[in-house]
Amino acid sequence: MASFPELQPSARVLLGPGPSNVHPRVMKAMLSPVVGHLDPDFVSVMEDIKKLLRMVFQTSNEITFPVSGTGSAGMETALANLIEDGDEVVVGVNGAFGERLADAAGRLGAKVHRVEAPWGQIVETERLESALRAASHPKLVAVVHAETSTGVYQPVEELGELAHRYGALLVLDAVTSLGCVPVEIDRWQIDACYSCTQKGIGAPPGLAPVTFSERAMETVRARKQKCRSWYFDVAMIERYWGPDRLYHHTAPISMNYAIYEALRIVVEEGLEARFKRHAANAAALQAGIQAMGLALAAQPGYRLPQLTAVQVPDGIDDAKVRADLLRMFNLEIGAGLGIFKGKVWRIGLMGESSRRENVMLALNALETVLAAQGMEIARGAALVAADNSYTRAA
Amino acid sequence: MASFPELQPSARVLLGPGPSNVHPRVMKAMLSPVVGHLDPDFVSVMEDIKKLLRMVFQTSNEITFPVSGTGSAGMETALANLIEDGDEVVVGVNGAFGERLADAAGRLGAKVHRVEAPWGQIVETERLESALRAASHPKLVAVVHAETSTGVYQPVEELGELAHRYGALLVLDAVTSLGCVPVEIDRWQIDACYSCTQKGIGAPPGLAPVTFSERAMETVRARKQKCRSWYFDVAMIERYWGPDRLYHHTAPISMNYAIYEALRIVVEEGLEARFKRHAANAAALQAGIQAMGLALAAQPGYRLPQLTAVQVPDGIDDAKVRADLLRMFNLEIGAGLGIFKGKVWRIGLMGESSRRENVMLALNALETVLAAQGMEIARGAALVAADNSYTRAA
Repeated sequence: MASFPELQPSARVLLGPGPSNVHPRVMKAMLSPVVGHLDPDFVSVMEDIKKLLRMVFQTSNEITFPVSGTGSAGMETALANLIEDGDEVVVGVNGAFGERLADAAGRLGAKVHRVEAPWGQIVETERLESALRAASHPKLVAVVHAETSTGVYQPVEELGELAHRYGALLVLDAVTSLGCVPVEIDRWQIDACYSCTQKGIGAPPGLAPVTFSERAMETVRARKQKCRSWYFDVAMIERYWGPDRLYHHTAPISMNYAIYEALRIVVEEGLEARFKRHAANAAALQAGIQAMGLALAAQPGYRLPQLTAVQVPDGIDDAKVRADLLRMFNLEIGAGLGIFKGKVWRIGLMGESSRRENVMLALNALETVLAAQGMEIARGAALVAADNSYTRAA
Repeated sequence: MASFPELQPSARVLLGPGPSNVHPRVMKAMLSPVVGHLDPDFVSVMEDIKKLLRMVFQTSNEITFPVSGTGSAGMETALANLIEDGDEVVVGVNGAFGERLADAAGRLGAKVHRVEAPWGQIVETERLESALRAASHPKLVAVVHAETSTGVYQPVEELGELAHRYGALLVLDAVTSLGCVPVEIDRWQIDACYSCTQKGIGAPPGLAPVTFSERAMETVRARKQKCRSWYFDVAMIERYWGPDRLYHHTAPISMNYAIYEALRIVVEEGLEARFKRHAANAAALQAGIQAMGLALAAQPGYRLPQLTAVQVPDGIDDAKVRADLLRMFNLEIGAGLGIFKGKVWRIGLMGESSRRENVMLALNALETVLAAQGMEIARGAALVAADNSYTRAA
């Protein structure tokens, strides 16, 4: 087997758009013995996962569980269960993940009304309302809470009430927000929301937590047409995750152990403390980045704490910077996506990766590789600005 | 966190329809550090996984990779990429997984021609041919290689040539066959095939290996309509798993480590030796079961080695037998599905679980719990029959 060596991936500091670093307790949990997907020992873990997810989603929604796929599988679950052929849907598109929503909805047979905004800007609530008003029977409106491609933090608190006023449901993409910033499903009247495990939750990638409001489930139960997807059909999946325990598909046992332990850690830390930690580390990083003379891609006032998009300065080789960070510091940051390819770096501080030592490493390492490419930088200014940010926050 | 205790699922002997037991080397591999989904260290693992999967699928198909979901996600990937609205498809239905294929194809817009056979019987090739002949433009024919609900071993060697003669593609469900019995994609001219990780491959559930022939990929590339599923769109996924390395979704990193190590173990053992091991253990189990006076559900000559469906004798409490096996022996066997609910047990000997000691345990334990329910059994006869089977095979 010389041609297939033993696995030895490098130990990285993961400050990209996810996966983020995984707590050793979560790794240990994955080693728990695999049991059957209907084993009473697994059923009790499933029940606890649902309870923990409800705490993290801040919801009492009965239908709250992890989909057996990564974040985009959560997106497909939300859309495939709510959309029937010809339904009108309104999608906010201001980055790669809004584009993905619009694409996925169209494939499922929806007539998609795109509400576009420039990358780096929020989608204004008034423009979403205009689209809802213009649609004849809008079935749902979908927006991205944390647009990972641009670092934009979309305001969503009022959108549930708005959607309902037009008889529509609100679908929220919380892939990059859950566990990093508040996601208040019930208070914000969100009808379907999905996330992932490998960002704010702090487990490896593999599952997509979702939650459906009772209003959304009424829509699901009133469908005239079967859900296009057998695998993501929530009406069947709820009979496995609910009291019936009717076999649907084999759940990824070890990944469910991982999310269980990761959610335990989230709840032990407490949501408020967790959000405060993300905010403090992001403030320090963003202060340092700007002190270094770099510009941020997202509009002021709407910048995510967990994902900072930094403009690549003129004359700097984007790919070389990322390769140098990986080679010299074992540090991963993200490249730009779509129209931002080559134009931004995406620095994540999510979940277990949101730590003061990682902020310092990122600023230090970036300074080193940019200086090596000839950029004039006031050496050390970034670290001072970051330190000051922590001092102000304390 | 008293209400959310530390995980401590029982250590089970998994002789159900999957998951089967996991080799300690695979568990260890899952603990390798999580890296980014575009990290060069992960990319090299992806390349090796594709090579290993081609060896196990016995194919040179370029498009061979693990889908980021469990076995049924593989089914959906095969169907969603090949079916467009109104396509005629022929599905062999002789158990729960043939039913699933027909259901999933219909949801994706296909006009489904069901070729039914009684549960426990194979679907005759002649009847599939009649359906192909009767269809005006059959797009594909789909059959289940190892019908997990009945233990039937479907003959498929000639079906590729047959499908092609009628201008159709052949889709094979190998969820319960890959790694247990030969699955010869190229020699049998199979166009799309999917499996899982938690049965014959010996990893935890979480991924669905798939392979598409060049003929299938021509169909994918000639689609008029986008694939209904964004998540399972192989035209996009191949740009991530192929040389472009274009981000599609975040792959489940740890599960990919697990499948890598599990496939290494499969190839180290060798396919021939592995199939022989499965056959020898199954022969012993089935000899023992019959010596105990129990009947098998699948028709003679077409019984799977990896999954034996045993008829529940009259007067025996199905659920109590399974509960006793779990409680007294930490032994999981499977319940009946669909119309076989309460009528059969399903005993798996797959991957790492296919061991002589497990055959002995299963026979011994079953004898004990059945005798406790008052069934008259010639005590010890099953073990003697199993021993004799091994002696004959040696």
